[in-house]
Amino acid sequence: MILDDLTAALGADCVTTGADMAPWCRDWTGQHAWTPLCVIRPRDTAGVSDALRLCNAARVPVVPVSGNTGLAGGTLGEGAVMLSLDRMNRIREIRSDARLAVVEAGVILSTLHTAAEQHGLAFPMTFGARGSCMIGGMLATNAGGSNVLRYGNTRDLVLGIEAVLADGRVVNLMSALHKDNSGLNLKHLLIGSEGILGVITAAVLKLVPRPRAFATAMVAAPGLPQALRLLNRLQEATGGAVEAFEYMDRVFMDRYAEMHPEAQEPFDTRFDVNLLVEVGATAPRDVESDADGVIPVAAYLEGVLADLLEEGAVLDATVAQSEAQRRAFWARREAAAEITMSRKPIVLCDIAVATDRVAVFLEAMQGRLAGLDAGAVAINVSHLGDGNVHYSAWPSRDDAGLKDAITEAVEDEVLRLGGSFSAEHGVGVAKLNSMRRRKDPVALAAMRAIKAALDPNGILNPGKVLPG
Amino acid sequence: MILDDLTAALGADCVTTGADMAPWCRDWTGQHAWTPLCVIRPRDTAGVSDALRLCNAARVPVVPVSGNTGLAGGTLGEGAVMLSLDRMNRIREIRSDARLAVVEAGVILSTLHTAAEQHGLAFPMTFGARGSCMIGGMLATNAGGSNVLRYGNTRDLVLGIEAVLADGRVVNLMSALHKDNSGLNLKHLLIGSEGILGVITAAVLKLVPRPRAFATAMVAAPGLPQALRLLNRLQEATGGAVEAFEYMDRVFMDRYAEMHPEAQEPFDTRFDVNLLVEVGATAPRDVESDADGVIPVAAYLEGVLADLLEEGAVLDATVAQSEAQRRAFWARREAAAEITMSRKPIVLCDIAVATDRVAVFLEAMQGRLAGLDAGAVAINVSHLGDGNVHYSAWPSRDDAGLKDAITEAVEDEVLRLGGSFSAEHGVGVAKLNSMRRRKDPVALAAMRAIKAALDPNGILNPGKVLPG
Repeated sequence: MILDDLTAALGADCVTTGADMAPWCRDWTGQHAWTPLCVIRPRDTAGVSDALRLCNAARVPVVPVSGNTGLAGGTLGEGAVMLSLDRMNRIREIRSDARLAVVEAGVILSTLHTAAEQHGLAFPMTFGARGSCMIGGMLATNAGGSNVLRYGNTRDLVLGIEAVLADGRVVNLMSALHKDNSGLNLKHLLIGSEGILGVITAAVLKLVPRPRAFATAMVAAPGLPQALRLLNRLQEATGGAVEAFEYMDRVFMDRYAEMHPEAQEPFDTRFDVNLLVEVGATAPRDVESDADGVIPVAAYLEGVLADLLEEGAVLDATVAQSEAQRRAFWARREAAAEITMSRKPIVLCDIAVATDRVAVFLEAMQGRLAGLDAGAVAINVSHLGDGNVHYSAWPSRDDAGLKDAITEAVEDEVLRLGGSFSAEHGVGVAKLNSMRRRKDPVALAAMRAIKAALDPNGILNPGKVLPG
Repeated sequence: MILDDLTAALGADCVTTGADMAPWCRDWTGQHAWTPLCVIRPRDTAGVSDALRLCNAARVPVVPVSGNTGLAGGTLGEGAVMLSLDRMNRIREIRSDARLAVVEAGVILSTLHTAAEQHGLAFPMTFGARGSCMIGGMLATNAGGSNVLRYGNTRDLVLGIEAVLADGRVVNLMSALHKDNSGLNLKHLLIGSEGILGVITAAVLKLVPRPRAFATAMVAAPGLPQALRLLNRLQEATGGAVEAFEYMDRVFMDRYAEMHPEAQEPFDTRFDVNLLVEVGATAPRDVESDADGVIPVAAYLEGVLADLLEEGAVLDATVAQSEAQRRAFWARREAAAEITMSRKPIVLCDIAVATDRVAVFLEAMQGRLAGLDAGAVAINVSHLGDGNVHYSAWPSRDDAGLKDAITEAVEDEVLRLGGSFSAEHGVGVAKLNSMRRRKDPVALAAMRAIKAALDPNGILNPGKVLPG
């Protein structure tokens, strides 16, 4: 019945059933599989609107999906209509003078990167999945990534959005303005709402001047406090131009070398604290090379590294001498999801604490993990510059109770340190327990009231974000 | 009855009635006056919670107020309980390493400025009312100001908030984190909601490195396009370090000189396009003076000005030679509200368009204003760097129909150019008509649904923001 209605409204080529639904029947982590009622792939906002109107009238659950690269199970759709935005993949406009791009939800992130570059600009949000994730999911989860330190989270890069509400009404908030206070901020409410309040179909995104030069290094430090000293010294020397400050532990380095034996190692030996540091420069004074061909921004980085080597706060450092070497440094960092999930069973955590508390957190977890499971191994990759730690553990046995106990231990320590149990991957289904146990109960009640007000039939991405 | 209950709950010294209510019986613009039922001044969040619980049970309207410096009539409280946050004025904590301040809603903005400075840091939000406006109102209206170009609007400077909902429940979102995705973003929903969803009682605010040096100039340009060329050239030369780029027209300059005859004029003659330009520098390379005592950041500014003088894109320029001269430049700009409101009747507009469309807007308005009222005079002060224009008109007669027609003409032109009828002052009661006529109707319906969900009895700041 709803299938017929959707087919009549959208056309048969926009409605998929049976085996062709395969790409929408599992998530990227391989932890979840499901069977949707159907997958619909509208070509435009009107199609999304029609589909939601019909599903709402029929009380049929709808799960929005774009790149399907999420790590929190936000696209599980057993028996649901999966609403894929992948055909809405136009970059409608790039206005380089106003430094903005108008894009549809199905645009792949790396496609936008390339388009912005052609205008001499950059869209600075980036992370490992950029080649397949799409703008819609990035906005729905308020994705973070490696450049948050300098440019903020996804929401900080959004000027306006267009979204379709549960009943099919289209809300037009496509502002291109930097100041716009006209009532409640629905834009920020919809961004990061993981599809439970509406389906984001298009957005106006900020672009930034493309750095003319980068200085990139792999650095080994004796500990995390010394790493922070490096960050602060670099921020001071460059006036806040550090674009990325990423931490990888020894387990990560070992595992990466094992899985990528072809990759050149950054150091002659292995260290505990490995950092990927990148400084970007836009001003002419920082990029015009001197008589010796040295670019100022590289000189700042090398100067700070030399000082800290002397102080013993840096153990070794390799500054990228070519774009290929820079990309190799990044390839290692961006393999984080692949490397982390290369072993099962796994407990994946995505937490945040203040930058000066990351070391305390990791130290506390060492003892707690060993106490729970002497055979467990922890692996850590962190956006150290913003305090976001991807703490994962490989327990020695596949035991739901043990995995839950590890998660609980992580959250105990995180909340003790004033942190968040959910930093950049979102809640989806993966963190429903955490929401139930840890989120401020008044905040949770307010979220439920808003959900009921905007989606009274509860058709949008049911069972996600808000614990039942 | 409610008076007795409030007195019993808060203590008699926290409940004011009669003549002592005078400061809370009018707004700063002098356009509105009213008589509240009483003014309550709780000392802490628990007091705010008690008061709201009682008022909600008794269905008594509550109007939150802090510094009462708003320009949109957001604190009108005829017959209401006015809830003043002014006694909640503690800076609870400044953590300079984490670059944050934990403050209560009643802290005066300039008090926070001073406190941050004592830690070598800055809270970069600033505007004319900083000596009396308070953090609570600043958050409730998502205030803008002169440094948005570099640091964003108020919401961009907020890590966490604490708020009390209509029924007295306290919602704790006091995150100190840069990444925190745990459900719907209530923080951004409450910021800018002008007190209709909850009362913000405390906040965690971001601090930034205090610029070690400023280069500040008054510049005269032949037109707005040339002014934009100056902005873009300066941004490029400094790697985006322009902190303020403010426009004042000739009428404003004339009126300021009239009202402040003691003030030194920046130029020997009067110009049409007058700019206050400020560049801030934090990196040592930009502030360490050379052998001649020239600071690099000043050299960049002077270099760009010299180039543009030669190109004819700058007519005259005075670079501040002392902190006193810099402050005098700012005093003129920050007298905007005083100067603009020095004549009545007045139509005050606070609109935004893309920066490259400000000139088009002003030109179009010249014709339309003259067509409506040949005797009307327009006066303009703009945050030109972010496209926010404070367009005001002094009509030749006090005629409500004429004033509405002028507002309508402004909004027609603004929307034709893709702008917003409400940039940084909020809606309050001043822009209810604009919301009714111009806001996306689906967005308006969604706002009403959220309001009903979180404040079902409609006690919080009734009659504001959402047209009836």
